[in-house]
Amino acid sequence: MSPYRGSVPFTEEWRHFRLERQGGVVTVTLDRPDKLNALTFDSYADLRDLLLELPQRGDTRVLVLRGQGRGFCSGGDVDEIIGATLEMRPDELLDFTRMTGQVVKAVRECPLPVIASIHGIAAGAGSVLALAADFRVVARSARFAFLFTKVGLAGADMGAAYLLPRLVGLGNATKLLMLGDTIGAEEADRYGLVSELVDDDGLDEATGALAARLATGPAFAHQQTKALLTQELDMPLAASVELEAVTQALLMKSGDYAEFHAAFKARRDPKWEGR
Amino acid sequence: MSPYRGSVPFTEEWRHFRLERQGGVVTVTLDRPDKLNALTFDSYADLRDLLLELPQRGDTRVLVLRGQGRGFCSGGDVDEIIGATLEMRPDELLDFTRMTGQVVKAVRECPLPVIASIHGIAAGAGSVLALAADFRVVARSARFAFLFTKVGLAGADMGAAYLLPRLVGLGNATKLLMLGDTIGAEEADRYGLVSELVDDDGLDEATGALAARLATGPAFAHQQTKALLTQELDMPLAASVELEAVTQALLMKSGDYAEFHAAFKARRDPKWEGR
Amino acid sequence: MSPYRGSVPFTEEWRHFRLERQGGVVTVTLDRPDKLNALTFDSYADLRDLLLELPQRGDTRVLVLRGQGRGFCSGGDVDEIIGATLEMRPDELLDFTRMTGQVVKAVRECPLPVIASIHGIAAGAGSVLALAADFRVVARSARFAFLFTKVGLAGADMGAAYLLPRLVGLGNATKLLMLGDTIGAEEADRYGLVSELVDDDGLDEATGALAARLATGPAFAHQQTKALLTQELDMPLAASVELEAVTQALLMKSGDYAEFHAAFKARRDPKWEGR
Repeated sequence: MSPYRGSVPFTEEWRHFRLERQGGVVTVTLDRPDKLNALTFDSYADLRDLLLELPQRGDTRVLVLRGQGRGFCSGGDVDEIIGATLEMRPDELLDFTRMTGQVVKAVRECPLPVIASIHGIAAGAGSVLALAADFRVVARSARFAFLFTKVGLAGADMGAAYLLPRLVGLGNATKLLMLGDTIGAEEADRYGLVSELVDDDGLDEATGALAARLATGPAFAHQQTKALLTQELDMPLAASVELEAVTQALLMKSGDYAEFHAAFKARRDPKWEGR
Repeated sequence: MSPYRGSVPFTEEWRHFRLERQGGVVTVTLDRPDKLNALTFDSYADLRDLLLELPQRGDTRVLVLRGQGRGFCSGGDVDEIIGATLEMRPDELLDFTRMTGQVVKAVRECPLPVIASIHGIAAGAGSVLALAADFRVVARSARFAFLFTKVGLAGADMGAAYLLPRLVGLGNATKLLMLGDTIGAEEADRYGLVSELVDDDGLDEATGALAARLATGPAFAHQQTKALLTQELDMPLAASVELEAVTQALLMKSGDYAEFHAAFKARRDPKWEGR
Repeated sequence: MSPYRGSVPFTEEWRHFRLERQGGVVTVTLDRPDKLNALTFDSYADLRDLLLELPQRGDTRVLVLRGQGRGFCSGGDVDEIIGATLEMRPDELLDFTRMTGQVVKAVRECPLPVIASIHGIAAGAGSVLALAADFRVVARSARFAFLFTKVGLAGADMGAAYLLPRLVGLGNATKLLMLGDTIGAEEADRYGLVSELVDDDGLDEATGALAARLATGPAFAHQQTKALLTQELDMPLAASVELEAVTQALLMKSGDYAEFHAAFKARRDPKWEGR
């Protein structure tokens, strides 16, 4: 557990998704299969809060996001969200849209690697959640739809107009966000949206293998890799090179770096401690 | 029409390209087919001015750029531009090169979606015009040549060294801008330069279909998508997420968002008003 | 030679790699084939110093980096570097990691085009050297391994977390840097890491042809293209457009630009002077 905890308790029960722990892997399953796992005000709030709390627990190495039933996540619920927002004042709307953006920001700024395990539809906010993850393990049945313009909103939602061009280039991002059309797994793969493309019946196994690998690997090294990838998107070359120099000097004082060298000399596999 | 017009009249006649209006679609045809639609000082100026004026008219939803005859645009005219610049003073040269960059900046900052409809050669300034557009509908005959180094100039012209790496990655951009070689439509497609690849005899139809779709769609949503894609290339993650939150809160007060919900409930297609 | 030399002499002998000059092409061969050309403290220092000195000599147009023997470069030496760093104080470590980053920064800021000619393994610092080059001529035997996490360090080394997302997109870069797995030449090519893919027995010829082309071409134009590609990754659109306008106005006063026009009029090939 982080030594820097004050009065705030950890959350005992997450009510708006299913959460399971196994070893260092926390799996969050969006679990409203009759609604294609549409997000609600409550599930956004729980995602935001979980992402801030999880790294402080000290027992988690990887977060997996997945969906129960026929697909990953169909986005914001048409009734519970779109209908409700029509009645809101401007300040209430901004409260809500800010929260959704905070989820994406929290995924990017969370030091833990995040894996989105995707089958079936990832639409709207669901597609942006997938986009914000570090790894997208994608089944052939998967489809992505950044469909915001189709409901009369900007394609720029929850940071999508920041992230998507940095993954697939401005031209592809413009097409996907402006038109909001649905694309299949193979088109997504050609664009660079897919970390690993698998058959549907191999999705859980591939997700589990990647999660286990990250959970048992050099966690401090992984976390700093993620942190610098995130930060250096917004940094110039010279500052990035300096940040990497300081980071590596710190890591060279870590136990895992010494362990690598000892294991190499002894011709055995390293035992990573993540510190 | 924009309520924020002062003394400046709209331009009645564009003399240096052909301009047609149909519904909300304005089509600009570069129309010097005997010169492969080479640009002149005058046609640059007209493009710059049109792009600033068009959004204020209030009657336009989409701009299409195309070329008459055998190709899209062969770039700056060797006689009328290169020859003339050899006689210019430094301050005169900067006046000219600034204008060319302002065309690209105006394409990116124009709130209207811009479609480049490309067949045959898009060379030099012609290739950068295509690059600056939001959509490139590309016929199989199309070729792109960022040929600036071949005339002794920097490959960085009119913003190409800013835009191209953000569409195709730094490695591909370096090759294209440093060497200036001509590439075909399929190579351009592999790099991510092509929004839609079509047979030559289907180019006008594909361009028209995309223009019509954008012209009859949720224009406010489209325009904000473009604006944020443009701005967020230059913004950090946290500010981008905040900008998107405020933008969506504004859009949630738009008629089109309410119309989507009403149409969804009534199981009919939405009638977009673009406001 | 640059007129802006003071007391510092040019280096007569580079002791930690082999250096050959032919025409305007300087070829640096990493030459410890029994160690797969692993880098040492000394070879990092020589690379850093060469890159700063070379452009001032005035006799060089292109730099080629290649490896002797079975591969390009296996990265930092496990004994001479990893072993040694385990004994260092924090300030000594930072001295070292800063130097490695300065090599990459110097490759990017060196006005000369840099070609990495790659066969066999490019691992760790070797893969980042390749990444920093302007052109990667890649043999089918080549493999890339950004293997830093496998030794317990951050995948962000020597600027890799800045450069790689800008070449291959954030998704692909995350996979490569976080996991550190080895990829082959064709996978690298799909990601956009390869400028030219050739058979192994054609590698020297392809590298030589590209180097000769750059060495005999419009060098001032090439150098400004590289400089602006490097700078504009860190610049907003408006400033980039202005920088390109000023750059082209300057180039329009160069001899090579006038030479292009004269050659075009005389229907002969231009004779580039690089000024």
